Amino acid sequence: MNTDATPTRTRLLNAALGIVREQGYEATTVDELCAAAGVSKGAFFHHFASKEALAVAAAEHWNAVTSALFANAPYHLLDDPLDQLVAYIDFRAALLDGRSIPEATCYLGTMVQETYGSHPVIREACFAGIAGHARTIEEIIRAAKARHAPQASWSAEGLALHTQAVLQGAFVLAKAKNDLNLARESILHLRRYIELLFHYAKED
Amino acid sequence: MNTDATPTRTRLLNAALGIVREQGYEATTVDELCAAAGVSKGAFFHHFASKEALAVAAAEHWNAVTSALFANAPYHLLDDPLDQLVAYIDFRAALLDGRSIPEATCYLGTMVQETYGSHPVIREACFAGIAGHARTIEEIIRAAKARHAPQASWSAEGLALHTQAVLQGAFVLAKAKNDLNLARESILHLRRYIELLFHYAKED
Repeated sequence: MNTDATPTRTRLLNAALGIVREQGYEATTVDELCAAAGVSKGAFFHHFASKEALAVAAAEHWNAVTSALFANAPYHLLDDPLDQLVAYIDFRAALLDGRSIPEATCYLGTMVQETYGSHPVIREACFAGIAGHARTIEEIIRAAKARHAPQASWSAEGLALHTQAVLQGAFVLAKAKNDLNLARESILHLRRYIELLFHYAKED
Repeated sequence: MNTDATPTRTRLLNAALGIVREQGYEATTVDELCAAAGVSKGAFFHHFASKEALAVAAAEHWNAVTSALFANAPYHLLDDPLDQLVAYIDFRAALLDGRSIPEATCYLGTMVQETYGSHPVIREACFAGIAGHARTIEEIIRAAKARHAPQASWSAEGLALHTQAVLQGAFVLAKAKNDLNLARESILHLRRYIELLFHYAKED
């Protein structure tokens, strides 16, 4: 008997986010997901046609959860979009604090490494999530570029996607060393890159 | 009857590098590895105690193959270590040309995403390989820093690891979009970062 008031579907989505970030998509079984969510296999297949369908729905759930986190983050309160951009990067570094590697890293970036060729529908969901978040940063970069570096040759879209590439790669190295400090160091390099691109004066 | 003169063990190692980069570690079965290598299951277990043992041996094989590739690359022929560093980054971009995503991406970075928690011995092999290659770049960066930026606050070791983080993240985004151009764009951003760090005058 389950005493958690969270709906069954949401419990399964949360279980997917947790377990896939720990051990990947292929290693995760429907039985493990059901056990973690405290639901029966019948309940699983009432909500999802397959593990793949759950993975895609969990990508949408991930996007909803993280979008809310970023939408409410303090970097939006700054006036200058360049200050917002630097504060966004600092916010990404702060999100590592007090979290384990599975908690600190990305469901989408983890899953796409092993599924991009074999599960196109998962790959597309992963890209939609990463690109969707990148677009929110692209808006900030576009405004910062217009104000501070209107002649620069790089594009706001390309730089926004690059910020996400650095974050994903930072997670890969942190996993390899089993040490989130490696991710922190790459995020600091990303911050320094932004500062250099914009001749940003407020280095700390 | 197998007409390939490559030793059985090497065929299995090469099969692991190919298939794991296509579909990840967990999705790959011993049967698939044997079929791709053209060897029997008995031959597999003559050479390797388990799929995990093959994965670790394949990481060492990967390191040997890629070390030879980088040791013979033209960037070593340049006199100035800063020219070498920039040429190394261009070499990494050129390695994407004419290759498919599995061919262009990293065995270690792919595998560590899904195994870092569940297979510590694989995680350690992945970090040893990534860090070992990073040390060859660290030597170049150390020499470039001594000559061109002796007062800089960043460390050669940290910047070398960051170059690898950017490459790994570039691969994640390329897989997500199914387009290696996304990796090319992040590698160009890495090149621009190096140029800015060193006030490098030879921008193209």
